Amino acid sequence: MKNFFEPRSVAVIGASNNEHKDGYKILKNIVDCEFKGDIYPVNKSADEIIGLKAYPKIQDVPGDVDLAVIIIPAKFCAGAVEDCAEKGVKAIIIEAMGFNEVGAGGTELQNQIVKVAKEHNIRVMGPNCTGIVSRDMITTFFPIKDVKPNGNVTMIGQSGLLAAGMASDIIKNDTLKINKICSIGNKCDINENDLLNYFKDDDQTDVVSMYLESIAEGKELVKVGKEITAKKPVILLYGGRTEAGAAASKSHTGSIASNSRIVDAAIRQAKFIKAEDFAELKDYAKLMSTMPVPKGNKVAVVTAAGSVGVVVSDLCEESGLKLPKFGPQTVEALKDVFPEFMPPANPIDLWFSIEKYGLAKTLEVTMSAPLNDPDIDAVILILAGFDYTLEVIEKKVVQGIAAKHNKPIIVCMLVGYNEIKNMILEGLGKDIPVFTSLAGGVKALSKYCDYGMKVHKGK
Amino acid sequence: MKNFFEPRSVAVIGASNNEHKDGYKILKNIVDCEFKGDIYPVNKSADEIIGLKAYPKIQDVPGDVDLAVIIIPAKFCAGAVEDCAEKGVKAIIIEAMGFNEVGAGGTELQNQIVKVAKEHNIRVMGPNCTGIVSRDMITTFFPIKDVKPNGNVTMIGQSGLLAAGMASDIIKNDTLKINKICSIGNKCDINENDLLNYFKDDDQTDVVSMYLESIAEGKELVKVGKEITAKKPVILLYGGRTEAGAAASKSHTGSIASNSRIVDAAIRQAKFIKAEDFAELKDYAKLMSTMPVPKGNKVAVVTAAGSVGVVVSDLCEESGLKLPKFGPQTVEALKDVFPEFMPPANPIDLWFSIEKYGLAKTLEVTMSAPLNDPDIDAVILILAGFDYTLEVIEKKVVQGIAAKHNKPIIVCMLVGYNEIKNMILEGLGKDIPVFTSLAGGVKALSKYCDYGMKVHKGK
Repeated sequence: MKNFFEPRSVAVIGASNNEHKDGYKILKNIVDCEFKGDIYPVNKSADEIIGLKAYPKIQDVPGDVDLAVIIIPAKFCAGAVEDCAEKGVKAIIIEAMGFNEVGAGGTELQNQIVKVAKEHNIRVMGPNCTGIVSRDMITTFFPIKDVKPNGNVTMIGQSGLLAAGMASDIIKNDTLKINKICSIGNKCDINENDLLNYFKDDDQTDVVSMYLESIAEGKELVKVGKEITAKKPVILLYGGRTEAGAAASKSHTGSIASNSRIVDAAIRQAKFIKAEDFAELKDYAKLMSTMPVPKGNKVAVVTAAGSVGVVVSDLCEESGLKLPKFGPQTVEALKDVFPEFMPPANPIDLWFSIEKYGLAKTLEVTMSAPLNDPDIDAVILILAGFDYTLEVIEKKVVQGIAAKHNKPIIVCMLVGYNEIKNMILEGLGKDIPVFTSLAGGVKALSKYCDYGMKVHKGK
Repeated sequence: MKNFFEPRSVAVIGASNNEHKDGYKILKNIVDCEFKGDIYPVNKSADEIIGLKAYPKIQDVPGDVDLAVIIIPAKFCAGAVEDCAEKGVKAIIIEAMGFNEVGAGGTELQNQIVKVAKEHNIRVMGPNCTGIVSRDMITTFFPIKDVKPNGNVTMIGQSGLLAAGMASDIIKNDTLKINKICSIGNKCDINENDLLNYFKDDDQTDVVSMYLESIAEGKELVKVGKEITAKKPVILLYGGRTEAGAAASKSHTGSIASNSRIVDAAIRQAKFIKAEDFAELKDYAKLMSTMPVPKGNKVAVVTAAGSVGVVVSDLCEESGLKLPKFGPQTVEALKDVFPEFMPPANPIDLWFSIEKYGLAKTLEVTMSAPLNDPDIDAVILILAGFDYTLEVIEKKVVQGIAAKHNKPIIVCMLVGYNEIKNMILEGLGKDIPVFTSLAGGVKALSKYCDYGMKVHKGK
């Protein structure tokens, strides 16, 4: 697998000088990502592509080739894999389409590839995939601009989307800190189990977000899944869980959807965190890649608006989170910033304190109290986009408080989120995940608490 | 009720020259919103406030007063209502706090107000509310900047939040086109039934979004609710539907939460649309205020990414929407932009067509076909934030297509939404609602279809 993620040299079979062709776009991305190793364009008729010497066949390349990317018509792919075998290449990404996903003829072509690869002990990612986006290597044909993965979230997708627009978008908007993205397409050889197994021991990866439309080997998934989730959270969005979704999936990646009950059982046994939408796949990873694993499901809510406290309380209870009454020590610690006629309670209402002491001091007191309380596992802070909120955000007040404690904190920015472009508040050694809806934040936290309790129970 | 929404003159009892006091902020908002009628600050000791002549008592005001806003300590409020009675005022908004929501002493003060008001046939909004934000009148004490309501959505909130930060935010970010916002607080007299009854016949209001923490009179709500939902959709977020939420609600508006089963029964009978979060309250209104009522629940999905089509299909089926197979006419109309090896299906995959014909022509064909299909009730379009998408958005292509058809269209902008600030795409006589998650868009549409089918059935 190292040949895929840390190749010392890469060849692009089907590289092209035509800017509209994927063979050009892939090579351009590899060049632009400042890949440190050797790059070899392979093209029958060109001498030079994007300033690099091109070779008619991969066998003509002078040096060793760790990784080959193939982007030529489907019917020529098996031949290209043979060429790679002759050259001694051990890792291939096939991005060409027209295989399993288009029916019987395509399946035949895909089987040929598998046969050749097996014979020569070559690992194949794809076909019908967009490959890898990582710190050192970008093999997708989607235009990826200004993207430099440097985070701790790794995504696996049976879809080009993750490795394409979404990657570019996430990184540009800073909504998630990506480490690697792998698009595995039709999974003719390398599948989610191989990757989970690899990322389990990958120190750069703290969280895995995964989109699948089929399960390669259920038992193996549960086995590998248990191993990796004991070390780090794995979030799974399974597409094709309904009849309508399964039908759409058939024409997308040629997947015969697995029975949704079997998928759900695998998710439960492997302790995966189940997402139902791409937004959740991102939101959950945002929380889990920035905050420590909660030890339980008892939360304190801190809010300046009473009605928001009410609705968050509803959402917490509906998603299995508990809002305990505070013990005497926490009540005592809060009393300072509460008016006499209003005893401190959970949710903690900031309104009067903000008017009297300002938001910064109010947060110091009202967040520290529950964070110091052994009976509280996490804090939900709801902020509004008023001018004084922006001031506190600029001064990194919340980050400072978070840095002193080892419990998860989430911020729901109910109002004014267009002004907070970074969906992760950075700084002071601790980044804070921001959610734009109460329901989104509460759901993410409840999933994390659930995972945390399962993991702690397992220990 | 007209005195509240179209007053010819307004007095602020408790107006102040101190910029930190609510009595200043309310008066400032009224002045800044360019209220066309007379404004009378009432203050025992000031001669002038914000350039307006002030009066020691409301009885000293020379002209008639249609509406009085009271913002003085709770214990003096009943006296101020007596003064209003003497002056002949028929509509009062009490924004002061310290009533039902603080316990027994407050309840006593609130009862005094009710008694005086009843004796003199005065209608009272509040106490513990932030009043009205409308085209002609802004009575809230929250700083409202650059806000000029001119849309068709009216919000009713048992909470200051709606009339405060959220209003300001929605209007600034253009996520929703507001007509009026009413914060009704403790509802000592005017309640949701009065307002629904008024907005039922208000031509400026096409959709009502409502946040409640208690139900004043259940039977009346069902009666008024049925009448208004026969004419326009009403969305209800009920806070306090769980034990935790009900406890939080008690200290917020002093509400004893109604049993959630009774609330759910009322929602069903009145054909309200149930929201579970503030985000849904806004999202649903965004859809329902821009798009015609769907006649059924059969949708077509149009997407450039296969995996998104799969997940949307799952979400549709899970939320009760149907994705029918297209009939021969629609398939024929789509064939032009599909490659031979890929028969047109629902979801409609745009990928190949975009590469060949560009996005604008692709959308013309792929959206018109299902919109012309009598077996399709609505279209979900998923766009990504690539450069070519932005170009199509600037050219208002989707709006142009929408303007030719009388079926709802929603756009889910899965990627790149930070670049699309206006969450409603404007223009060409039809605005298009944009959602930032698949689940959010699908849920809103499913709620609207559900409403549409109930309304059509009722006719």
